[in-house]
Amino acid sequence: PLRGDHDERSLVFADLTHEEYVQVQQYMLNEKDLDISTNQVTKPSQNFLFLINLSLPKKAEALAYLDAKGPKPVREATVVVFYGTKGYIKEYVVGPLPNPTYHRDVTVERYQMELPINARLVTVGEYALLFNFLLTEVFSKLEKLLKESFNVGPEKLNAFEQMPRGVRSGDRKTWVSFFRDMSGMYIHPVGFEVLVNHESVNESEWRVERLLYNGRYFNSTEDLQQEYDEGSVNKIVYKPSPDYGSLKPTNKPLQIGPQQFYAEGKRFSVRNNHVLYLDWSFAFGLSSLTGMRVFDVRFKGERIVYELSVQEAMSVYGSVTPGMIITKFLDSSIGIGRFAHELVRGVDCPYEAAYVDTYRYIDVPVPVRFRNSICVFEHNMGQPLRRHFSDFFHHSYGGMANSALVFRTITAIGNYDYMWDFIFYQSGSIEAKVHATGYISSSYMVHGSRGFGHQVAENVLGNIHTHFINFKVDLDVVGVKNVFQTKDMEFVNVSLPWMPDHYSMVPRLVEKQLKTEKDAALRYDTKTPRYLHVASNKTNRWGHQRSYRLQVYSFAGDHLPENQAEERSMSWARYKVAITKHKDSEQTSSSLYSQNNMWDPAVDFSKYIEDNESIEDEDLVAWVTAGFLHIPHAEDIPNTVTVGNGGGVLLRPHNYFDKDPSIHSADSVYFSPG
Amino acid sequence: PLRGDHDERSLVFADLTHEEYVQVQQYMLNEKDLDISTNQVTKPSQNFLFLINLSLPKKAEALAYLDAKGPKPVREATVVVFYGTKGYIKEYVVGPLPNPTYHRDVTVERYQMELPINARLVTVGEYALLFNFLLTEVFSKLEKLLKESFNVGPEKLNAFEQMPRGVRSGDRKTWVSFFRDMSGMYIHPVGFEVLVNHESVNESEWRVERLLYNGRYFNSTEDLQQEYDEGSVNKIVYKPSPDYGSLKPTNKPLQIGPQQFYAEGKRFSVRNNHVLYLDWSFAFGLSSLTGMRVFDVRFKGERIVYELSVQEAMSVYGSVTPGMIITKFLDSSIGIGRFAHELVRGVDCPYEAAYVDTYRYIDVPVPVRFRNSICVFEHNMGQPLRRHFSDFFHHSYGGMANSALVFRTITAIGNYDYMWDFIFYQSGSIEAKVHATGYISSSYMVHGSRGFGHQVAENVLGNIHTHFINFKVDLDVVGVKNVFQTKDMEFVNVSLPWMPDHYSMVPRLVEKQLKTEKDAALRYDTKTPRYLHVASNKTNRWGHQRSYRLQVYSFAGDHLPENQAEERSMSWARYKVAITKHKDSEQTSSSLYSQNNMWDPAVDFSKYIEDNESIEDEDLVAWVTAGFLHIPHAEDIPNTVTVGNGGGVLLRPHNYFDKDPSIHSADSVYFSPG
Ligand SMILES: [Ca+2]
Ligand SMILES: [Ca+2]
Ligand SMILES: [Ca+2]
Ligand SMILES: [Ca+2]
Ligand SMILES: [Cu+2]
Ligand SMILES: [Cu+2]
Repeated sequence: PLRGDHDERSLVFADLTHEEYVQVQQYMLNEKDLDISTNQVTKPSQNFLFLINLSLPKKAEALAYLDAKGPKPVREATVVVFYGTKGYIKEYVVGPLPNPTYHRDVTVERYQMELPINARLVTVGEYALLFNFLLTEVFSKLEKLLKESFNVGPEKLNAFEQMPRGVRSGDRKTWVSFFRDMSGMYIHPVGFEVLVNHESVNESEWRVERLLYNGRYFNSTEDLQQEYDEGSVNKIVYKPSPDYGSLKPTNKPLQIGPQQFYAEGKRFSVRNNHVLYLDWSFAFGLSSLTGMRVFDVRFKGERIVYELSVQEAMSVYGSVTPGMIITKFLDSSIGIGRFAHELVRGVDCPYEAAYVDTYRYIDVPVPVRFRNSICVFEHNMGQPLRRHFSDFFHHSYGGMANSALVFRTITAIGNYDYMWDFIFYQSGSIEAKVHATGYISSSYMVHGSRGFGHQVAENVLGNIHTHFINFKVDLDVVGVKNVFQTKDMEFVNVSLPWMPDHYSMVPRLVEKQLKTEKDAALRYDTKTPRYLHVASNKTNRWGHQRSYRLQVYSFAGDHLPENQAEERSMSWARYKVAITKHKDSEQTSSSLYSQNNMWDPAVDFSKYIEDNESIEDEDLVAWVTAGFLHIPHAEDIPNTVTVGNGGGVLLRPHNYFDKDPSIHSADSVYFSPG
Repeated sequence: PLRGDHDERSLVFADLTHEEYVQVQQYMLNEKDLDISTNQVTKPSQNFLFLINLSLPKKAEALAYLDAKGPKPVREATVVVFYGTKGYIKEYVVGPLPNPTYHRDVTVERYQMELPINARLVTVGEYALLFNFLLTEVFSKLEKLLKESFNVGPEKLNAFEQMPRGVRSGDRKTWVSFFRDMSGMYIHPVGFEVLVNHESVNESEWRVERLLYNGRYFNSTEDLQQEYDEGSVNKIVYKPSPDYGSLKPTNKPLQIGPQQFYAEGKRFSVRNNHVLYLDWSFAFGLSSLTGMRVFDVRFKGERIVYELSVQEAMSVYGSVTPGMIITKFLDSSIGIGRFAHELVRGVDCPYEAAYVDTYRYIDVPVPVRFRNSICVFEHNMGQPLRRHFSDFFHHSYGGMANSALVFRTITAIGNYDYMWDFIFYQSGSIEAKVHATGYISSSYMVHGSRGFGHQVAENVLGNIHTHFINFKVDLDVVGVKNVFQTKDMEFVNVSLPWMPDHYSMVPRLVEKQLKTEKDAALRYDTKTPRYLHVASNKTNRWGHQRSYRLQVYSFAGDHLPENQAEERSMSWARYKVAITKHKDSEQTSSSLYSQNNMWDPAVDFSKYIEDNESIEDEDLVAWVTAGFLHIPHAEDIPNTVTVGNGGGVLLRPHNYFDKDPSIHSADSVYFSPG
C-alpha cells in the first residue's frame, strides 16, 4: 500500500530510450552534409558520432510543467561529433523527440569557445590504431626482451594509459604502462612504459617519443633493443608472479550471512524513472558522463531538491616514474555513468532490491542496454532512527527502526569501482555518498618509489593519490528563492545573572547570511563554519527560517596548487561547498572535454563564481566536494575495501519542519507499563 | 559452524556476578568499624556504600595469564564509600573473590589526593531529602503561583538539575529547573528555577539561595510569594500545552519494514563474556561508570586490541538563564553503563540479535539485573565490502557483501540516549561509534534566549551545546611495544624525468614517528596529519611497519577554553588523539568524582602527558575524542534522530597484513563467463 501516486511528468528527466537514441542517430546520419560515421572503428581522421545524451530541460520550463503551470518542455538530445576532417568537436542539440527535425550547434553557447579536436576522448577507433601502432612500432621490435623479461609474446601485455596526455594544450602524448595479463592487471606492472605521440589525427604521423624499461629511459625502440642486445641494460629477468589480484574465493561458504527481506512486501515502487517510498518521491536518470542523478525530490509532496547529481570524480597521483607522476584523472570526461554495469544480486545490492535497466549511446555504433544497472531497495540500517527510554518519571519507551531507501549505481571506471548511494531517510534527510573499491593503480618499483606510496606486492608500488568527488545539490527550500546561511558557536564571557561578579565562558550561537558567490565559496584550506544551510525566508512555526543543512563527510587530501596549469580543469575541488546562483548554462562543474585539455578546459568551475553574483533570494545551487587521501597499503590487495574509503554529504532538515516528520512514521513503536 | 573456541580466560574481564556483588557487600558490612550502611535512603550525613565494581587486573598479569605464561590474576572489586560522618570519600579494593578477606584503601594511590565528600554524586538518599526540601521550602509556600502559572499542585512539576553545582571547589549549589509532568519533560520547561544550597551533609542547613520566575530573580521563596501576591511580578498565566514530546505513533503500521534474518543460523556465539565471530574473538564488560568495553580483541587468534572502551560523554551548554548557562555534563561521573537498560527487539537491535543480561551495584541496596542490556548481532550493511567488475581485458566479477558484527549498548542518561557500537568487519577493521538520540535539554524562553539556540516549541529554547565523547584505544600491534606514526601528503615540485625542463607539483608521502607524549597530543584546534598509526617495528612481507590506523569521525564544536576552572575535568577533549605510555594507574580519562568537583578533579587527563614520556617502543594507549556541535532545531522534537548525530573512530589495518584478509572470507563471490 503506497502513499501517493507515480507521476509521469518525471519523464522530462528520463534518459533517452533505445528508440530515441536510434531516432537521433538516424537523423544525424541523414544530414548528409555533416558527413558523420557511426562505425565503431571510425578513425580519428574521420567524423565520428561519439555521444547521444539527454538534453536536460530548462529549469523554469520543467518547474512550470511539474507544477502544472506550463506545457511539457520539448524533448531534445545532445549529440557530440568528433570532426577529424575539420579538427574540431561540435555539440549539437537535436529535437524535437521522438521525431527530430532540427539540429543546432551549441558548442560556443555552452562553452564560450571552440573545442579543439585533441580535447576529445580516445575512441574505440583510435584505440584500435594505437594497439596496432604499439604492436608494430614497439612489440614486434622487442620480441627477445619481451620474452626474456616478461615471458610474453607481443600480445600478452595489457596497456593502461596515463592522463593528462602531456603538459600543455594541444598535447596528445600518452604514457602507456604495461601490466601482466592477470586478474586485476592494474596491480601487476612489469616496469615497461612507452610514450606515444598521437597528436595528429593521421595515425601515420604517430611516433614513439620515449621508452622506460626497468627505470631507464630510451629515445626509441631501436635504442632500447640495441642496448638490450648489447647487454648494456640492467635486465628484468622473468620470474613467475602469483595471481595475487585474484578475487576467487579461497574458502567455501560455511553458512550464508544475514539476509534482508520484505516480510510484507516492498514499501517502495519504481515506475518509469519515478520512485515512490513512504513520504518520498523522485525522478531519476543516469548520464553517461556524470552518472547518477535525481530530480524533483519531494517529501510529502513538497519539493526539496530540484537536482542532486554526481558531477565528477577526480584523482591526482604521485610517482617517480611516468606512469602516475603527472596522472590526474577526471572521470566524467571518460564517462562515470558510462560504466554503470550490471549489479550483482546479494553482493552489490540485496537480493530483493528492484533493478532497473539503462540505455546508453557513447562510443558505440548502436545504443546499448545495461541490464540491472541501477538498484533501489529499502534497507534496515541496523539501528534505531530515534528512541528514548525513560526510567525516571515515566517508565515508557518510544522509538523506531531506521529503515531508509537506497538508490545505487556502481561504476567500474577502469581499475576503480565507485559505489554511488543516494539515501532517503524517514526523518527527511537525504544522503549522497560515494565509496571506492576495486583495484588501486600501481607502478613498477624503481629507486625512490617509496617516497610516493607503499610497496604492496613484489616490485609493486601502490601510488599515493587523492580522491575528490563533486556533487551538485540544487536544493529548492520552499520554492527557488533561497539564501545561504552559516551557523556556528563561539564562547563569550558572560557575567552570571545570580552572581554578577562571576564570569563564565558560555557557547553562543553565531548566525550569518552570506551575500555573494565569492563569500559563499568555502575553501577546503580555510576554516569553514560548522553548519551550512540553504534557507528560505519563509519561517517555520517557531519563527525560524526553514532550511536544509549540508553536512559534508570528507577526509580529503590537499588539492592541486592553483599555480598548476591543470588546476583550472578541477577548480571545483578548491571548495568544500560553493554556492552559485542557478543558471541553466552552468549545468555541470566539469566537462567531457576537460581530461584531454586540462590546461584550457571547456568548463572551469571557478568562473561560475568569478562574477560574484548576489546569492540573496536567488535560486541557489550548492556544489559539494568530498574526498579522501589514499595512501595504499598491503590491504588494498587485491581490492580496496569500502569501509572507511568514502565521503559524501548529508542534507538535513533544520527548522524546515515544525517537528521531526518521522514521528508520523508507521514504523514508530511505543509502550509503557500502564 | 564456528571457527575457534570460546576461551574462559575472558572471565578476568567479566563484570562482577550477582553473587560477587553480594559477597563484597556482605564483607564490607561485616567490617563493623567502617560503620557503613547499604540502606537505599542513607542520608548524606551517614556512611553509604555507593558502588561495587570490578577492579580490572593489571595488564601485565592479565597478558601473562591470557598467553598461558602466568597464573590467573586475583579477582578484586572496587568499592566506593561516601563517609558522611567524616567528610570524605574512600575507594577500596576488596578481595580476593569469591571470598573476600581483605580491603585496602586505594584512594590516594589512585588519585594522589583525598576525595572531599562534596565530590560525591547525589544519591537516592540525598534526592529524597532534596525533594522533601523543595516541597516544604518552595512548593508548599507557592501554592497560588503554582496553580495559576502551571495549573499544578506541589507535586506535579518535575525537576532537572544543572551541573556543575556551583563555580568553585566545595560548592554544592544546584540550580533545579522545573518541567511539566509530560512525555519527555526535558522539553517542557515552565520558567521556574530554584538554586538550592545543599553543601552541608546535614540537610537542616540547606537553604534556597535564589529563585527564577519568568525571567526575574528573587532572593527567597517569601520574596517571590509576596511580590507575586502583590501583583508586582510579570505572571506566567497557565495555558494548556500539547503533549508534543509524545512518542506515541500517530499512524498504524501499514507494512512492516525490512527485516534481517540468519537463513542458516548465527555465525557468531556469545558464551560468558566471550564473543566469537568468524575470524574475530573478544571479551567484554560493562562498567557502571564508563560503559561498554571490550578486551583481548583478536583476529585469527592474534591480539590487536587489549582494551577498547568508552571513557566519557561530555556536553557544554549555552543559555541566558541558570538552567544551562554553566551546564557541563560529565556522564561517566553519573554513570554511563549504569543506564544501559533493556534493548527493544526490532528497534534498538534486530529481532534475531543475541541479548545479554548485565548486573550492577550502584546507589542501590542490592545488586540489580538488567535484562537484555547488551545486544550482539551480525548485520548486512547493505553494500559490498569490496567488488570489482572488469569489462576490459577480463570479463569477470569478484566481490563480497559487507556483513559485520555489531556489539551494542544504549544508555539513557536522563534526557539523552547514547547508542554505543563496536563493529567488527571482515576486513580486519574495528569501529567504535556513538550516536545520540532521545530528548534535548531546553530552557524556558526569556529575553535574549535566541542567542543560545533555536526555539523548538511554545516558549521553549533548544539550547546550543557540544557533545564530546572519549574512547580509550589500547592497540597492541604485534605485541605491546609500539610506536606512533603519522602519514600525510605534500606537494613537491619535481622535474619530469623525460623532459627535465618541465616541473610539476606531485603528491609525496610524508611519514613521521612522534617521540614523546607531548608531540603526540594532537589538538583539535591545530592541523593534524591525516593518517595516524599505532605501529610495530615488525614489518609485513613488503618491509613496511605493521600498523593500525586511527581514522576519527567527528564534527566537534569548540572545546571549553583552558582558562576556565572547569576545563581540567575534561582536558581529554583538547585532543583529537593523544597517545600515552600505558600505565595501570591511568585506567580512565575521567572519574566518578569529576562532575561534582570539576575545579579540582580526581583525574585530570592532561597530567598523563605532562611528564612527556617517550612513546617509542612502549606500550601505547590512544585516547580518541569525537563529537559534534548540536544546534537544536524543530526536528529535535520530540527526539533527536541518530542520522548525522554521531562520531567515532575506525581502526584500520595498514600494512598490518600482507593483503586484505577478507579475501579469505567464505562470503566471497566470483564468476566469469569462462
Ligand atoms: Ca555566478
Ligand atoms: Ca535551488
Ligand atoms: Ca605519561
Ligand atoms: Ca598498547
Ligand atoms: Cu584510491
Ligand atoms: Cu545534543
